[in-house]
Amino acid sequence: MVNVAVLGFGVVGSGVAEVLATNGAQIDRKVDDLIRLKYILDVREFPDSPFADKIVHDFSVIEQDPEVSIVVETIGGAKAARDFTERALQSGKSVVTSNKELVASHGYELLQLAKEHGVSYLFEASVGGGIPIIRPLNQCLAANRIEEICGILNGTTNYILTRMIRAGLSFDTALKEAQANGYAEQDPTADIEGHDACRKICILASLAFGRHIYPDQVPTQGITGVSLADVAYADACGRKIKLLGRAMRRPDGAVSAFVSPHLVALEDPLSGVEDVFNAITVKGNAIGDVMFYGRGAGKLPTASAVVADVIDAAKHLGKRNYLGWGPGGPDAAVPPEDVASVWYLRLTEGGEEVRAAFPEAARLTRSGAPEGEQALLTGEALTRSALERRLAGLVPAAAFRVLD
Amino acid sequence: MVNVAVLGFGVVGSGVAEVLATNGAQIDRKVDDLIRLKYILDVREFPDSPFADKIVHDFSVIEQDPEVSIVVETIGGAKAARDFTERALQSGKSVVTSNKELVASHGYELLQLAKEHGVSYLFEASVGGGIPIIRPLNQCLAANRIEEICGILNGTTNYILTRMIRAGLSFDTALKEAQANGYAEQDPTADIEGHDACRKICILASLAFGRHIYPDQVPTQGITGVSLADVAYADACGRKIKLLGRAMRRPDGAVSAFVSPHLVALEDPLSGVEDVFNAITVKGNAIGDVMFYGRGAGKLPTASAVVADVIDAAKHLGKRNYLGWGPGGPDAAVPPEDVASVWYLRLTEGGEEVRAAFPEAARLTRSGAPEGEQALLTGEALTRSALERRLAGLVPAAAFRVLD
Repeated sequence: MVNVAVLGFGVVGSGVAEVLATNGAQIDRKVDDLIRLKYILDVREFPDSPFADKIVHDFSVIEQDPEVSIVVETIGGAKAARDFTERALQSGKSVVTSNKELVASHGYELLQLAKEHGVSYLFEASVGGGIPIIRPLNQCLAANRIEEICGILNGTTNYILTRMIRAGLSFDTALKEAQANGYAEQDPTADIEGHDACRKICILASLAFGRHIYPDQVPTQGITGVSLADVAYADACGRKIKLLGRAMRRPDGAVSAFVSPHLVALEDPLSGVEDVFNAITVKGNAIGDVMFYGRGAGKLPTASAVVADVIDAAKHLGKRNYLGWGPGGPDAAVPPEDVASVWYLRLTEGGEEVRAAFPEAARLTRSGAPEGEQALLTGEALTRSALERRLAGLVPAAAFRVLD
Repeated sequence: MVNVAVLGFGVVGSGVAEVLATNGAQIDRKVDDLIRLKYILDVREFPDSPFADKIVHDFSVIEQDPEVSIVVETIGGAKAARDFTERALQSGKSVVTSNKELVASHGYELLQLAKEHGVSYLFEASVGGGIPIIRPLNQCLAANRIEEICGILNGTTNYILTRMIRAGLSFDTALKEAQANGYAEQDPTADIEGHDACRKICILASLAFGRHIYPDQVPTQGITGVSLADVAYADACGRKIKLLGRAMRRPDGAVSAFVSPHLVALEDPLSGVEDVFNAITVKGNAIGDVMFYGRGAGKLPTASAVVADVIDAAKHLGKRNYLGWGPGGPDAAVPPEDVASVWYLRLTEGGEEVRAAFPEAARLTRSGAPEGEQALLTGEALTRSALERRLAGLVPAAAFRVLD
């Protein structure tokens, strides 16, 4: 018998309880043991829930129960979640989480703590919701030197962009619709400003390249600056605007990561990823490109990833888990300033100067463009600083990289 | 030190040697031990190979060397490969393979033999080349009851269909081009008749549904009956023709699997999988649909999947491996006769009778259709037997299912 405690009875936590109940017989067969939900920690009572008898309000009940060997943390944030995670690991319990903020900001220390205490710290659900990506990256692609990771990592922004592209909604209208459908929070900042995607690319980059990459090392631009004009110009050149998290190994071995809107060609499988779906492409030196696609959020998809980790933790009780990476530091990631791309530019002034600055550019047109607006794709790949030198003080209304 | 022997120095076997050499330092870090290639078994000599000093011709050298703990079988076929695999497992060595024929026809017995001897039998590379699918299906989706698997599992046929669709080549011309490019064998039967896809869906279905499904339980139709007329009619209704391997859990719990050409809607991510790429979608009761996409064949992609299994085997030496399924039997899979689909039909005769038989059908047109040809999508989903009753003796020139 393997006893599990769930911390936080919100969307994901209640989904975990539901998946353990619904698919319990099959899960027990997978582990060849009985996995049982013993406690649910929450400040609230849930008198009408079928799990009401498992609710406790004091973490120390869980911490001090030697029968509990796996703790599922679905509280979110980096405060109580961090405290409870540390105490659980120190008590010799494995911890499974969907908490991308905590892993992105304190993953290295928590993985070290888990190692010291001979337990697992697992977080498949922290990236891509239910999509298997952490374990495939760590195990299935283990024979590769990973060269680049590129993904649509946030379902909320992908939904908004999809509605702008397909229904012609403005950003504000699409955001309101996403909120009405439950795809965006009432405070949508973390999604639309790219912070959520940033945390996820940090986790993927740390795992792929072997040192902790922190969110403040990853320049992040969200989608609030994307307009319907940009959508129209992208369409005019056979591309779609997507918010991408990217991390790459540079020729000198350094790692760069960033989050920003990109123009993605229709032939690229990422361009077909719509609505709240996520997709992550991984390039390895042996395997080439592989892509993982599915629902990046949602109660049951995310819960199914959490429970897969619970199964893994249960199989490895008392055994070594190989998931982890080395410490971060200022040299673990270098700014992406000299990553060269073709750029999409939209400007509202400077007609003559722009034509002179980018003589080889492909000019784009759209119907209904206001007087003086111009848009182009720079003909050659430029670093950001080279782009700014060419612009010589002109400030574009939009400047997005074009994905190779 | 973990010593490895590779059986068969062909495309995949030499790729394994290359990946172990190229990415050796990183692989050793992953295992926290030294993985060394000690022997390569082949009937030939390779005096100019950098691995010439590792070549042996007698399997018993490997079998009797207690230092060898992992054997990589890349011989193919089910004769010598089976004999050597059994002897390796009986000698307490883990075996890693890319051999789909052997796994599809004898996987259950070999997995049992591995279990009896406390070693692993791993075959990530047997399906989807380098695409991680076996381990994600077994581990990451372990919390799900799998409902259906549907995939483009054969790169050769997908290349031929892509060339028919995009370049208007006939089947024969596209096949010749595939042979010239090294994407098809000189004897292409196993690919174009669907046998290769059949073996792969057998392996996936066995893993997903828990009992061995044998190739002779899987009705298999290849692509030799697909014509440019069918490509044109599919295009006329916004679909592409793809060869799919499918396995599904039926409402009564039984499993059905089959391989056949399907019409796939452009909105379905599978329709965008082109050339030699493979993609596999898995539907779970918690996760919904997830898709895995990448190169389904090729020396280094396949070798990278083999080496990932070598790493896994090295981490689990002397420990239990949970990969496996139960015995097959006549009741493990039921024929898909009562799986209902909308059907695409092309007929060269019987105009009146066809219109009467399918009054609700969507009729399709193409330019240049010969006198008397008609094509349609049946309006409602029909089982194969219901379709045949409607056809009342008329024999269509093509009858393909439309993917839901």
